[in-house]
Amino acid sequence: MNKTITLAKRPIGEPSASDFAFETEATPTIKDGEILLETVYVSVDPYMRGRMSNAKSYIPPFEVGKPIEGGVVAKVTASKHPDFQSGDHVSGMLAWKQIQTSTGRGLNKVDPEAAPLSAYLGLLGMTGLTAYCGLTEIGTPQAGETLVVSGAAGAVGSVVGQIGKILGCHVVGVAGSDEKVEMLTSKFGFDAGINYKTAEDMAAAIDKTCPDGVDVYFDNVAGKVSDGVYLHMNRLGRIINCGAIAHYNETSIPMAPRVEMMLIKNSLRMQGFIVNDFTDKFPAAIQQLAQWLSEGKLALAETVVEGFDNIPQAFLDLFAGANRGKMVAKV
Amino acid sequence: MNKTITLAKRPIGEPSASDFAFETEATPTIKDGEILLETVYVSVDPYMRGRMSNAKSYIPPFEVGKPIEGGVVAKVTASKHPDFQSGDHVSGMLAWKQIQTSTGRGLNKVDPEAAPLSAYLGLLGMTGLTAYCGLTEIGTPQAGETLVVSGAAGAVGSVVGQIGKILGCHVVGVAGSDEKVEMLTSKFGFDAGINYKTAEDMAAAIDKTCPDGVDVYFDNVAGKVSDGVYLHMNRLGRIINCGAIAHYNETSIPMAPRVEMMLIKNSLRMQGFIVNDFTDKFPAAIQQLAQWLSEGKLALAETVVEGFDNIPQAFLDLFAGANRGKMVAKV
Repeated sequence: MNKTITLAKRPIGEPSASDFAFETEATPTIKDGEILLETVYVSVDPYMRGRMSNAKSYIPPFEVGKPIEGGVVAKVTASKHPDFQSGDHVSGMLAWKQIQTSTGRGLNKVDPEAAPLSAYLGLLGMTGLTAYCGLTEIGTPQAGETLVVSGAAGAVGSVVGQIGKILGCHVVGVAGSDEKVEMLTSKFGFDAGINYKTAEDMAAAIDKTCPDGVDVYFDNVAGKVSDGVYLHMNRLGRIINCGAIAHYNETSIPMAPRVEMMLIKNSLRMQGFIVNDFTDKFPAAIQQLAQWLSEGKLALAETVVEGFDNIPQAFLDLFAGANRGKMVAKV
Repeated sequence: MNKTITLAKRPIGEPSASDFAFETEATPTIKDGEILLETVYVSVDPYMRGRMSNAKSYIPPFEVGKPIEGGVVAKVTASKHPDFQSGDHVSGMLAWKQIQTSTGRGLNKVDPEAAPLSAYLGLLGMTGLTAYCGLTEIGTPQAGETLVVSGAAGAVGSVVGQIGKILGCHVVGVAGSDEKVEMLTSKFGFDAGINYKTAEDMAAAIDKTCPDGVDVYFDNVAGKVSDGVYLHMNRLGRIINCGAIAHYNETSIPMAPRVEMMLIKNSLRMQGFIVNDFTDKFPAAIQQLAQWLSEGKLALAETVVEGFDNIPQAFLDLFAGANRGKMVAKV
């Protein structure tokens, strides 16, 4: 029998284990033109909270009673497709199933010799592309500028900060524990870190760690962290709105100080994006990230949860900040 | 004797006539390298409210007890400067004085035969440049896209909407009276107008007049008007933050629904600017605006207040929405 994880119901506010259901089905078989896939790694990502709701967004919602779908690395265990053979590894958007079939459409072959398989869900996958494209295409950081990253110990933030250092920026990260903040400087090479949970005054903490002000702000969280950073943006600064995890579980749009006058006074730009806005940049981005990884300039940071049954909990733990770097489940 | 208008005190909240003082001084005389200028037109603009406060901004504050300074068109009545002769007209940042001296630095000669002199403070001056550069450089409107303009009957807004029509956009303006809204379609060629003071639901009014959603929003006002427009922005839309007149007289930063999630969901860009961000584009912009004016594609819209003594009131009237198009005082 084959296990699958479906959306049991749509969460209101914070999601919980009861929003997911485990079902079993007969192990599938393949027809001509198909491949059989055994899941190896499953990606859990904050953006998936959006797909659990029924609200209009850039990506269709999950359907209640249907399998959850996300980034997966799988091994080809049988093939009736000319382009794939048993033993190949692929990555792509696939169902949360132990075993599934595919026509191969939308899947990319990945090389376990070139990088650890889990890296294709993180640094060399969606989160690495998000970090690289958002920072370079929207943020356009210049050597000597100051870059602030929120959610800095997370999958995207930890890569953003490291790229900022490679590009010659003064990099300050904001994270949610002293242990994470320590990791920012010791493991990821940030110049300084701020624990937003213990900082009494975010704006003052930014002022102290960013003596020349902030030129580029890569934001994964929004909320009061961002309100504090905004107060120290330099003229012609860029705010990259990548995520807003502080608000994903809120049931109404929260209020905040108006941004329009701040944008005008300092000629600031705020820009939201999704990684697929930059598909034409992916090949060059992957090549650059892989090169930096092989040169040891980028650290591979992952939190790996073991076991298919623990996938939902790994997802839920994202909102408690349990991950360091990319959160993945190993099946 | 020569009259001058100084800043008597810094307003808190809404400015009033008592914030200005009239002083008289001996009529100045010129030395070698100077010219004597007689003021012809004085520009009053919402951004000047910011200079009356002591807050840090992109332009230094006015000093209490010193003359107010702004856009002026003046006639040269005497010259000891090789580049100017009596009878020339100039525009530039000058004091609110009937007569003043200048070294000519920062002044541009203007041609009363090529356009009415007041146009050099509006369509062919700062407000025209603001409209043209903000719309084309930040908004990058494409033919067939929908453009919404707030403060649409004002100096900048009325030009933005007309340029939008020239570029082939569906253009909707938001203004503060039925008479202004009527003017948007009859005089400026907008496709539709909304009176925000009588519209019960701004978002619904935008939905009705912008059936394909909003691609470009040129914002001069912020406030609830903008909150309504934001709800109908299309994917990859651009919000040009030019002004926030709804808030210039507020004494604290008002609260509003957070924008970060909206920016992410639709890959939106919000960008503030001041016209001097685009000084390298000015020569081409002036040439294009003058050509459209001479071809009759742009209507020259002004509210002219007569008399030097009425300059402060003309400024104050901006915040009551008394102007149609550019507000100027004729001395």
